[in-house]
Amino acid sequence: MKRARVGIVGAGQLGRMLALAGYPLGIECILLDRSGDSPGGQVAQLRLGALDDAEALAALAKDVDAVTLEIENVPVEALEAAARFAPVRPGAAAVAAAQDRLAEKRLFSELGIATAPFVEVGERAALRHAAAQLEWPIVLKARRMGYDGRGQRVARSADELERAFTDLGEVPCIAEQWVRFERELSLIAVQGADRERVYYPLAENEHESGILAATTAPYDDPHLWDTAKRALDALLDRLDYRGVLTVEFFHAGGTLVANEMAPRVHNSGHWTIEGAETSQFENHLRAVLGWPLGDASPRGVAGMVNLLGRMPPRERLLSIPGVHLHDYGKAPRPGRKLGHLTIVDTSREQLLERLRLLRSEVGAAET
Amino acid sequence: MKRARVGIVGAGQLGRMLALAGYPLGIECILLDRSGDSPGGQVAQLRLGALDDAEALAALAKDVDAVTLEIENVPVEALEAAARFAPVRPGAAAVAAAQDRLAEKRLFSELGIATAPFVEVGERAALRHAAAQLEWPIVLKARRMGYDGRGQRVARSADELERAFTDLGEVPCIAEQWVRFERELSLIAVQGADRERVYYPLAENEHESGILAATTAPYDDPHLWDTAKRALDALLDRLDYRGVLTVEFFHAGGTLVANEMAPRVHNSGHWTIEGAETSQFENHLRAVLGWPLGDASPRGVAGMVNLLGRMPPRERLLSIPGVHLHDYGKAPRPGRKLGHLTIVDTSREQLLERLRLLRSEVGAAET
Repeated sequence: MKRARVGIVGAGQLGRMLALAGYPLGIECILLDRSGDSPGGQVAQLRLGALDDAEALAALAKDVDAVTLEIENVPVEALEAAARFAPVRPGAAAVAAAQDRLAEKRLFSELGIATAPFVEVGERAALRHAAAQLEWPIVLKARRMGYDGRGQRVARSADELERAFTDLGEVPCIAEQWVRFERELSLIAVQGADRERVYYPLAENEHESGILAATTAPYDDPHLWDTAKRALDALLDRLDYRGVLTVEFFHAGGTLVANEMAPRVHNSGHWTIEGAETSQFENHLRAVLGWPLGDASPRGVAGMVNLLGRMPPRERLLSIPGVHLHDYGKAPRPGRKLGHLTIVDTSREQLLERLRLLRSEVGAAET
Repeated sequence: MKRARVGIVGAGQLGRMLALAGYPLGIECILLDRSGDSPGGQVAQLRLGALDDAEALAALAKDVDAVTLEIENVPVEALEAAARFAPVRPGAAAVAAAQDRLAEKRLFSELGIATAPFVEVGERAALRHAAAQLEWPIVLKARRMGYDGRGQRVARSADELERAFTDLGEVPCIAEQWVRFERELSLIAVQGADRERVYYPLAENEHESGILAATTAPYDDPHLWDTAKRALDALLDRLDYRGVLTVEFFHAGGTLVANEMAPRVHNSGHWTIEGAETSQFENHLRAVLGWPLGDASPRGVAGMVNLLGRMPPRERLLSIPGVHLHDYGKAPRPGRKLGHLTIVDTSREQLLERLRLLRSEVGAAET
């Protein structure tokens, strides 16, 4: 049978895991990245090129059945250039909304999805307006290019807010009221052809210094799940979406407050490789190609721990019963996501205990 | 962390699935094959070379941490040439025993592992002796190069036995008494460093025209499992084995009769990708590198169906709930293993019903 070909913009660990999920299905992924030793380039065909190079994206599109992306900061013009030669999924409109924190929050509001109160900060003069409208602390975020906690500062006073704006380079920002949350949850939905949809269960995420440290799933709360599903459904409808869509929420005051969305496979869904019937990576590819989607039901209770900055000795990790290692093939660097571990159990209590031990083991190795 | 490197002799679907299992662990597989469009070469680095070329194997060994094989018909001399530069696992002695049906049966007998009665047939004159010693029907098998039912004939009379010997090219053979079995079972064990061992559950196999058609696992029978485990233990001990070892048994007369062994990952273990905590492919690599082994416990009840000769339309396969597709990227050819499907359930009854439907679906597509 003819192999299907998917072009992926970006060849980081997400591109790598997409490519690996594609092979068993007879899907060949071709990855575009500016780095020759990227995680994805170690396991699949790599094209060297900048992610904002419209010509490179168009050339990639000519050789594949569909184009997708593993990073949302790809210029809309480059995606539109690719779309002349192959379907780009998700489409430029969805990616554009996720690239700009202001557009994203406005979209959430329009669709009736609860968010923290926010104020646009186009220039320094608007900071005073933000301080007047919002309660302290206030989180100032650059509208563009933020990820893993980068491009944002928390301010507890007008002075701190001014300094935060300076620190962020006086770029266009959004000021948000800090949300006192009980926990962070995320929901991943997938839309395929003919509006076929599947939803993973809610996942609970723990961040450290703005970087995802651990995820457990499912987080069982039917009421919150309904709330999250309604939000995702509204976004899938409005954006005429195709592929995996992730929304991160704060669980606060008994309900969900949407924080941000990612138009791609997401770190909070890595547990699905072992913990769900079909992984987010496989389902994203199936959606992008217009193939039937796979069952997104959980298989037991899963916990995922990111390996940040330094890889503990592999043999020590593999000696821990039930640990599944995912090594991204990256050079160590403080705070860098080098890999992740997943464990799956049948009991949530047991899982949490094993996860606690695993995290202390991994933490000990990092020091 | 430094990537580990494993050289694999052969780049068929087994080499392909080994390479895919290696990537998440930070293992890079380098495959040797004479074909440039092999299933393994589509997903990993390929070296072109004949599997009996001692120089090619030695060159491969120089570039890797360990050498293993995905096919047992590699000349011992070539394995020994490789072993001068890197450990070859399993070792030449184990591979030699599995290459020769007579050596294999004699080894089974020496170790007290039950086999069908057998007689060596070195030349035509020995056929009469075989007919006198054994009951009809008799299976005549070429000692070397047999797989997937090739290189064997069933004979019901002296005349048929003579013709069988002619058909097989008058090569050295072994004559075995036909076993009237209730079912075919196989057991996969893995031996790592320091004699660490794990065992998968017994799997039940169905062959069609000598080719594996379907496997279900676990086949729960503690008594038979003990019998099979004792056989595997004896072989692992004697052969100072390293890696995955598979033994196929006939279940006959309330006990197990060993049919053959394979010194490699095995088609009857493909269900372990989704159906066991750690797949046979991952555990083989871990064993070969001397790393700790992973849990071989089943996750539910799994069924595997081979896709033979022709691939049914991919979108139809993927529309069946819970089906996991493994496409080997091969051109269709009658009887050729092109891929496999796996489904996992929590109930054996449900699984068998789903498997029945799946097989009729796949069978319908083949006609």
